[in-house]
Amino acid sequence: MSIVLGPNQYGKAETRVVRVVRDGARHELRDLNVSVALAGDLAGTHLTGDNTAVLPTDTQKNTVYAFAKRYGIGEPEEFGLRLARHFVASQPSIGRARVSIEQYAWRRLGPHSFQRDGGETRTCAVTVDSDGEWVVSGLTDLVLLNSTDSEFWGYAKDEYTTLPETKDRVLATAVSARWLHASSTMDWAASYDGVRAALVAAFVETYSLSLQQTLYAMGRRVLEERPEIAEVRLALPNKHHLLVDLSPFGLDNPNEVFVAADRPYGLIEGSVLRAGASPVDGAF
Amino acid sequence: MSIVLGPNQYGKAETRVVRVVRDGARHELRDLNVSVALAGDLAGTHLTGDNTAVLPTDTQKNTVYAFAKRYGIGEPEEFGLRLARHFVASQPSIGRARVSIEQYAWRRLGPHSFQRDGGETRTCAVTVDSDGEWVVSGLTDLVLLNSTDSEFWGYAKDEYTTLPETKDRVLATAVSARWLHASSTMDWAASYDGVRAALVAAFVETYSLSLQQTLYAMGRRVLEERPEIAEVRLALPNKHHLLVDLSPFGLDNPNEVFVAADRPYGLIEGSVLRAGASPVDGAF
Amino acid sequence: MSIVLGPNQYGKAETRVVRVVRDGARHELRDLNVSVALAGDLAGTHLTGDNTAVLPTDTQKNTVYAFAKRYGIGEPEEFGLRLARHFVASQPSIGRARVSIEQYAWRRLGPHSFQRDGGETRTCAVTVDSDGEWVVSGLTDLVLLNSTDSEFWGYAKDEYTTLPETKDRVLATAVSARWLHASSTMDWAASYDGVRAALVAAFVETYSLSLQQTLYAMGRRVLEERPEIAEVRLALPNKHHLLVDLSPFGLDNPNEVFVAADRPYGLIEGSVLRAGASPVDGAF
Amino acid sequence: MSIVLGPNQYGKAETRVVRVVRDGARHELRDLNVSVALAGDLAGTHLTGDNTAVLPTDTQKNTVYAFAKRYGIGEPEEFGLRLARHFVASQPSIGRARVSIEQYAWRRLGPHSFQRDGGETRTCAVTVDSDGEWVVSGLTDLVLLNSTDSEFWGYAKDEYTTLPETKDRVLATAVSARWLHASSTMDWAASYDGVRAALVAAFVETYSLSLQQTLYAMGRRVLEERPEIAEVRLALPNKHHLLVDLSPFGLDNPNEVFVAADRPYGLIEGSVLRAGASPVDGAF
Repeated sequence: MSIVLGPNQYGKAETRVVRVVRDGARHELRDLNVSVALAGDLAGTHLTGDNTAVLPTDTQKNTVYAFAKRYGIGEPEEFGLRLARHFVASQPSIGRARVSIEQYAWRRLGPHSFQRDGGETRTCAVTVDSDGEWVVSGLTDLVLLNSTDSEFWGYAKDEYTTLPETKDRVLATAVSARWLHASSTMDWAASYDGVRAALVAAFVETYSLSLQQTLYAMGRRVLEERPEIAEVRLALPNKHHLLVDLSPFGLDNPNEVFVAADRPYGLIEGSVLRAGASPVDGAF
Repeated sequence: MSIVLGPNQYGKAETRVVRVVRDGARHELRDLNVSVALAGDLAGTHLTGDNTAVLPTDTQKNTVYAFAKRYGIGEPEEFGLRLARHFVASQPSIGRARVSIEQYAWRRLGPHSFQRDGGETRTCAVTVDSDGEWVVSGLTDLVLLNSTDSEFWGYAKDEYTTLPETKDRVLATAVSARWLHASSTMDWAASYDGVRAALVAAFVETYSLSLQQTLYAMGRRVLEERPEIAEVRLALPNKHHLLVDLSPFGLDNPNEVFVAADRPYGLIEGSVLRAGASPVDGAF
Repeated sequence: MSIVLGPNQYGKAETRVVRVVRDGARHELRDLNVSVALAGDLAGTHLTGDNTAVLPTDTQKNTVYAFAKRYGIGEPEEFGLRLARHFVASQPSIGRARVSIEQYAWRRLGPHSFQRDGGETRTCAVTVDSDGEWVVSGLTDLVLLNSTDSEFWGYAKDEYTTLPETKDRVLATAVSARWLHASSTMDWAASYDGVRAALVAAFVETYSLSLQQTLYAMGRRVLEERPEIAEVRLALPNKHHLLVDLSPFGLDNPNEVFVAADRPYGLIEGSVLRAGASPVDGAF
Repeated sequence: MSIVLGPNQYGKAETRVVRVVRDGARHELRDLNVSVALAGDLAGTHLTGDNTAVLPTDTQKNTVYAFAKRYGIGEPEEFGLRLARHFVASQPSIGRARVSIEQYAWRRLGPHSFQRDGGETRTCAVTVDSDGEWVVSGLTDLVLLNSTDSEFWGYAKDEYTTLPETKDRVLATAVSARWLHASSTMDWAASYDGVRAALVAAFVETYSLSLQQTLYAMGRRVLEERPEIAEVRLALPNKHHLLVDLSPFGLDNPNEVFVAADRPYGLIEGSVLRAGASPVDGAF
């Protein structure tokens, strides 16, 4: 039985670019981590080491820096689209380009002074091929906690179940969310702000019987409020806050003192989408 | 347009279990990090918070520990299969179970003394559903370096290309490899050792014109030597070793002094499989 | 020549405690990582394994949780003092206790909802022994950047110097600062806010000829504004933002596009103190 | 009360240098992470931004690379001494240089092929000033485990003590060790191998009543076997392996199934030195 090359891609990962816009005394700052992955007719380099079709990953890095100067960065989705279109359009052997971006936020302290905002990271993944363009925006490491209004009971039990049911627990998670846009023309900044606000509002306002219920509420809220979004995918680690047993010390503990546990953790993953739409895995 | 729940799963991630086998004075040690993900008829918990179908992730954790005692661990693939089959068989609402395991190696120092071997981590991902069973074994963080016998030239050039061609460079990577077994009955330990040896041998023995060529040679070697393997997927970061320009100091640098760079890095990803087989994405 | 035991200490590191204060619907949250280190007459356990003098680290952990319930946490310095005094007072063999705390900030989203604030971590190190009490407060990972008003020139040059002088560069750092209080009775929250504000203001307002100059300005500003502080120690990594050479692409780059480099980095460390005071190394 | 500059230093941290020695077909590899810190008459740059005395950290980095070519690296202690002496000798304003090095190990796979050995990292810290030279060698992340021959009982108990005494437990730690050489002329490689072997042997062979006892045995063994060593400092985290309670599942657990816990952890720190010697804190 013979052996063949399957799906493959290559590119430059984690090019760190900071772009300062210096129009007068008041500077603006964009801080990105850009990863490029290209696919196409790349059998030659794999089978014989013929690199004719291979645009070096070093060139991809240079392109990121040159485009940051030539066109500016703007919103990460715009920058990703510009880069992805460029690689597909300019390289005959490249049929698909995927640009993944992390954007780090900075808070203004002065006309040219900034503090890194250590909260969530904004992300996007842009895919361009001959069939079309897909833009998935997202965020990671948005850590949220409700100190009450969360229950967990009525679950399946088997011989290995020891967890007590509870009508009041801490619910905490580090949100990783990605959402597919219905189009690649968009007010990206407004859309991001709107989706983020919907996610947070749903987490805060949902009286939760399970983290799955909260996940669905978050995805649903985004789709209800943001018509430009086709699908939301969420991964929510259950950052367990374990109630400490203080009874050996003659103390009760009515949901006041917790261990913030590292591992293990529950992990709840799910997608919420508009009825009739089929999941577009390649875009995510 | 109405809104619906899409694909979803949940489980306990990163349960750390160490199992000591104490048959007499000479102990054996297994050290695992186990993650479980279950899917099935879970609409209730998402839509209304009805947890009837939800086996708590805490129970999944308990099951890992109880099975480690009751059945021992053995090879990680065996342990993963036993756990995955258990969840699917015992929970009416669960149609698919996926168990992902990292195994950390320890080197023997004495009858009951061990040193953690900090090299690669052995991995596996076992998937069980009503259609069958899939076992993917793998490894991560196997860092390999050839200090010569690597070239890179003849590549595509555009206006952003500045990389000089080279007939001699350092080639280094941190291998992440996963391979699909043709069956779920196997001598897992022997297979792992054989695949690992094939990957290393191909890296060492390939005179490389591109990291893609090395990737393909590694996957091909596995399939040639190991009939039990159906497909190999590799992700190879190009851990760039940049030649330092010492000419300002009146020194030449004939491939002797390098910067080991962190970011950015090239990332080469690809699969190698037997002709006629179709990639089985769900197993990976 | 005989062999003896030198200085030693032991304790429980990184006890993670979250304390919810539930006075009515509006909850408050404290989130700490507490490390205890005890020293004293501990020769027995080292030389013969006689543990009579050893209060288990597990007990230290329990004490953290019990004190969080019994007394509340309040400011981290208060909590650290209470714990350190307890160990010295209650254990005859313990002559010195040191409690180091990291406090993670949360931003309020609702009466019982919070978002983890990913910026700097507030720290303190409290030392109590028979000679007295020392409280060092601090912060880490406060990342600041000035996109102009920084020069670097006029430095020493030798045969290995290639760095071009500059009259305009990006200056960025991740501030690690620790400051010694003149007393262990203090309005800790007000003091922290004041010191933090002074550090930031000095970074923002200093036209910098070297990162050392900025460091000294930051320390000096704290001592000028905060009479309760005796000494400030700063460690400032120079998070290099390297100007990209875009000339191969026909583009100039007037301080607009930068590589945010990971390694190597400059590291500037120094202390600023009141004249006549001697550095109190044991407190830091 | 006036404000003054206290102790300070500056330098380039984490310069990553890989040196290939290519004498014929069989290559040799050294892989280091080098950090330099210089101190001296540096008031000018702090107080006024006068950089006359400041050799740029960029120059320090260049020196690392140039020296790697010009002199080779050899053992890390040699390389550190050469660098530290150079800075003190060549820069009038620099009175003290400290070079800290991490060396990453590689295992040979072929004449020019290597695998990164992921075990412990070898370290050294070299300090040179007008009073002399101090060399501290060390290692970090050597993870050791005894699955029996460890007890812990007879300890102090107070109202917060709940830990049960045990006559049989797992003892595991990640060794961080540093040892001061009596001289700066040494067969560094042989000394390293000897010290490392002594540390491991003592861990393996000590029937342990406390981790402190094991710590002291490790330090003592080094001093007994290696006359060239003046003092050993050890930091041993107690990597707790917690026995899982399997009784709810009708299973006993005679020291067979453990949770490998992340946090919190005990931390045991101590030094062992020759009688009459005083600890030389500045060297460590």
